[in-house]
Amino acid sequence: MTSLALIEGAASRLAGHARLTPLLNAPLLDRIAGRRIFVKAECLQWTGSFKFRGGWSAVSALTPQQRTKGVLAYSSGNHAQGVALAALRHGAPCVILMPADAPAVKIANTRAYGAEVVLYDRATQDRDAIGATLAQDRGLTLIKPFDDAMVIAGQGTVGLEIAVQAAEAGIADATVITCCGGGGLTSGIALALEAHAPGLRVRTAEPAGFDDVARSLASGVRERNAATSGSVCDAIVTPSPGEITFPILKRLCGPGLVVSDDEALRAMALAFHHLRIVVEPGGAVALAAAMFRSDLPETVICTASGGNVDAALFADVLTRFES
Amino acid sequence: MTSLALIEGAASRLAGHARLTPLLNAPLLDRIAGRRIFVKAECLQWTGSFKFRGGWSAVSALTPQQRTKGVLAYSSGNHAQGVALAALRHGAPCVILMPADAPAVKIANTRAYGAEVVLYDRATQDRDAIGATLAQDRGLTLIKPFDDAMVIAGQGTVGLEIAVQAAEAGIADATVITCCGGGGLTSGIALALEAHAPGLRVRTAEPAGFDDVARSLASGVRERNAATSGSVCDAIVTPSPGEITFPILKRLCGPGLVVSDDEALRAMALAFHHLRIVVEPGGAVALAAAMFRSDLPETVICTASGGNVDAALFADVLTRFES
Repeated sequence: MTSLALIEGAASRLAGHARLTPLLNAPLLDRIAGRRIFVKAECLQWTGSFKFRGGWSAVSALTPQQRTKGVLAYSSGNHAQGVALAALRHGAPCVILMPADAPAVKIANTRAYGAEVVLYDRATQDRDAIGATLAQDRGLTLIKPFDDAMVIAGQGTVGLEIAVQAAEAGIADATVITCCGGGGLTSGIALALEAHAPGLRVRTAEPAGFDDVARSLASGVRERNAATSGSVCDAIVTPSPGEITFPILKRLCGPGLVVSDDEALRAMALAFHHLRIVVEPGGAVALAAAMFRSDLPETVICTASGGNVDAALFADVLTRFES
Repeated sequence: MTSLALIEGAASRLAGHARLTPLLNAPLLDRIAGRRIFVKAECLQWTGSFKFRGGWSAVSALTPQQRTKGVLAYSSGNHAQGVALAALRHGAPCVILMPADAPAVKIANTRAYGAEVVLYDRATQDRDAIGATLAQDRGLTLIKPFDDAMVIAGQGTVGLEIAVQAAEAGIADATVITCCGGGGLTSGIALALEAHAPGLRVRTAEPAGFDDVARSLASGVRERNAATSGSVCDAIVTPSPGEITFPILKRLCGPGLVVSDDEALRAMALAFHHLRIVVEPGGAVALAAAMFRSDLPETVICTASGGNVDAALFADVLTRFES
């Protein structure tokens, strides 16, 4: 089970390897929001998202034998890149299983981090079956994107840093809003803050139409999304909260916040203008909630969880939401 | 005279007020450059540029009487915003003298930081005469953009941070490339590194056609630019190196590097893709030199000195230089 001890163990394995990302803020952003907003800029993390932390935590926790054989992940996005670079730095072989129609730049980036990319046809092939065969034939260890205690522990190091940085900024009492997909980042942060900053309470943010976590927190059981794609915030769209993550979310987080796609894109433009960081749509939902929802306290800390966004989309956002 | 002691004094006045900006790097950027590149991300500084440091240093060094009367700066850009926020936080009145045709967003931002903006007509009015009258009538202290010992001392705190961060990253020997206008940032960094990291040698970067510093370093005397406007890198275009800064540059820096406007814009796109930071053209010339010049060592540290860029220009850069 994921616990504070696992997170602190991950923090010591990540020390000197993951980047301590800054907690940013800006007076003009606060003025627009009508409250104090602090942004944990995980888009500045290695590989452009917090996923590097979970990848490093998982790879560094393997036995030497497991590491020599290598790791496997299913992902076309941030998790792939995070695991690939973590494996590269550990000298561990890494296989990433990606749909053949994944964007070319994501395939190229994952390869650039040294991973072997195996492509499959979404329409005709079964990803899990291919993965199981690969894992068995080569002895690879599967690193799941969120429902894995070591991955959650790695993401929880974001929470340890927020606790320290909030204290340095004199913040004892605030809402922390996370960009929430399967709940790995959120559950890790919630466990870390429960122990180290009990005045910081966690709420989740999700895109409208893909609010499985908000509905699950409301009903008390794991709800599923009707669709599994179709949001511009694709990086955080998952079918439902995880088996391991949901009990933690249920105990420590909520109620869930929901933002429109346009609000997420508008938050990207605000982060550009006022914080000078590049945030992807799924990584901007927490800032969007902090800016545009009203039932929030005077001080809000939010994660900007990733910055891997196509230049064309970013240019379009700047053009549409110039302010 | 500016000295290490002044920089260290500025550092203690800035502690807890200026942001310790991260030193960023990315494996994929290194691969493109063919060398190790580290970026001191001053675009993440308060007000979006290193100018806040010099502003804070100068305002905090005033006597209580001077501070009560207030400060004056001539600027339509980063220096204006840096001085305005520093004055606001010190409770000091602040007057910024700007040309009436300055971009509306810059006027609005400077006002949002609490400054009184006085507009003048570039064609018919004499800025220095208006400033002198304002200063005399109201007892304001003029804060120059670079030729001021306290301003240089504030910018020099960037160098103190680079010395520490380079040591943490195991870098003992490197070239540090600065985005150089009048030389305030460059001379401050050079003095700090001379004392704290003698293996880090400073070179300047400038846009082609506005390479007064490179030519001055080559000739040994202060050369002037033929034109004073017309570069997309407007934030760092100055007529010539400063009286105070040039002797420091001459003793410690060079040879100067020159990049084309297109190289600066391409560096902005690379910073977007690989570092997820927003850099303005003038703030990207050092990264451009680090990426595209060949006579450089294995490890280069460069300043990304500001991130105040119009959304339309940034969108255009992403569209033109998508990679």
